[in-house]
Amino acid sequence: MSVTIYEVGPRDGLQNEKTVVPVRDKAEFIHRLVAAGLPVVEATSFVHPTWVPQLADAAELMAMLIDGLGERGRQFPVLVPNQRGLDRAIEIGCEHIAIFGSATETFARRNLNRSLDEQFAMFEPTVTRARDAGMDVRAYVSMCFGDPWEGDVAIDQVVRVGKRLFDLGASQLSLGDTIGVGTAGHVTDLLDAFNAAGLSDDVLAVHFHDTYGQALANAHAALRHGIRTFDASAGGLGGCPYAESATGNLATEDLVWLLHGLGIETGVDLDALVATSVWMAGVLGRPSPSRVVNALA
Amino acid sequence: MSVTIYEVGPRDGLQNEKTVVPVRDKAEFIHRLVAAGLPVVEATSFVHPTWVPQLADAAELMAMLIDGLGERGRQFPVLVPNQRGLDRAIEIGCEHIAIFGSATETFARRNLNRSLDEQFAMFEPTVTRARDAGMDVRAYVSMCFGDPWEGDVAIDQVVRVGKRLFDLGASQLSLGDTIGVGTAGHVTDLLDAFNAAGLSDDVLAVHFHDTYGQALANAHAALRHGIRTFDASAGGLGGCPYAESATGNLATEDLVWLLHGLGIETGVDLDALVATSVWMAGVLGRPSPSRVVNALA
Repeated sequence: MSVTIYEVGPRDGLQNEKTVVPVRDKAEFIHRLVAAGLPVVEATSFVHPTWVPQLADAAELMAMLIDGLGERGRQFPVLVPNQRGLDRAIEIGCEHIAIFGSATETFARRNLNRSLDEQFAMFEPTVTRARDAGMDVRAYVSMCFGDPWEGDVAIDQVVRVGKRLFDLGASQLSLGDTIGVGTAGHVTDLLDAFNAAGLSDDVLAVHFHDTYGQALANAHAALRHGIRTFDASAGGLGGCPYAESATGNLATEDLVWLLHGLGIETGVDLDALVATSVWMAGVLGRPSPSRVVNALA
Repeated sequence: MSVTIYEVGPRDGLQNEKTVVPVRDKAEFIHRLVAAGLPVVEATSFVHPTWVPQLADAAELMAMLIDGLGERGRQFPVLVPNQRGLDRAIEIGCEHIAIFGSATETFARRNLNRSLDEQFAMFEPTVTRARDAGMDVRAYVSMCFGDPWEGDVAIDQVVRVGKRLFDLGASQLSLGDTIGVGTAGHVTDLLDAFNAAGLSDDVLAVHFHDTYGQALANAHAALRHGIRTFDASAGGLGGCPYAESATGNLATEDLVWLLHGLGIETGVDLDALVATSVWMAGVLGRPSPSRVVNALA
């Protein structure tokens, strides 16, 4: 058996780090992640620099990757918040984009400046144009397990949002526990509900944050359910913008340790990955929160 | 459904911390853990102070607990390495002891100064005398999932050691991943093997360390298997003496978050427990590695 790790460190990780990493270091980071065997690396986001100054160099970074890696460089997914972002991605020659929807009203208004239902109208032309241009589209659903303002989020609401985003023309839906509050039974219940709504585990990915230490247990619950694509961040990069002290994404290394322990293939060279995260920790000037990185480094 | 959390912070946690905590703070720690709802708190170890100076005050601590709490104070389990330790535990009036065996030859020689098979002869008179004195005996099996010198540990060897320790007269066997290398499938396989050897999940507990980030995922695998007693350490106290950078035990708070998320009763007041771990982090002068403590503090 094998699974696909969808590496989000360069985008979701670095986006939430205080330190702004130089573009050359970002390119080296991605090169090293690919060399360590990560099959998919989300490279950056074409969001407006006012909102995410950490990724203001998105165009420059993608040009460097495409210049250095050619066709391979075009395949790194990039987050695209709107039509203007899509214009930039198309101009540069990107082939894979991701959109970032919200499962809750409050986060839709805060992050997208739209109501829960208005977000679909906002994303629709972006997804349609991307698909017409031959691009692959991944849709994130954020706040699937809880919301810092609303608390619990009803599973049927998450499924309704996810299905509408998927039906716009996405090839994969990534279900995110943005604030890391979910537990294993909740994961299973949500996946069951998506399956019942016609979305099989084949088109679903999971995206866990380790704020309450649940990320790996949740990933294991999803694996047992049938999920085969897992988002993770090298070295556990990425804080959570809503909780100063919270830790970031599920660390790719900790996930790899579990998967290899279960005899599941990932294609990842764990030693090379750990070395990459140790190097990036040096760039950021802080230790990695990954247990495996600390144990093996 | 409910589970029993067997709190090991004051013993396995503080034993592996560099800072020596004053006895009054240890007593307060245990009082606060009990007040937070922990049903079982392993208090200390009657090991020779040369080996574990952190717990040199074992007799004084137990006398304080019994003095303050009476019958309740006698019920805190204490680790007893040998007959001399048992003498001290009986003298003070303890009612519950634990012994600490090894699943591997190398660790038996290093930790017990006995061969793998000689350990049973060493423990036998201790367990027999304790049982004759009406005491309850728990047996730890360490290095069940890997050993720093030997690497992999065969499941049938672990079962053989565990069953012999249990058959000496223990009421419960705690299966320890002392160096934190195990993964969820290994947990299930080991529990299956114990069941096949006649030891049901009712007499088994699990004891995980988070060195490679697997502790909670392993606990969840054990829970699904049928285990209902889980060792954990408040705030994730306790390093691993064999790996400087490694993190300690499974944090009680992270386990409670999972269990409560699954709708399982523990009797623990999470806020009171977090406050206790924050206080102890102050005593130790270092932050807690527990994700939940950091998120809620």
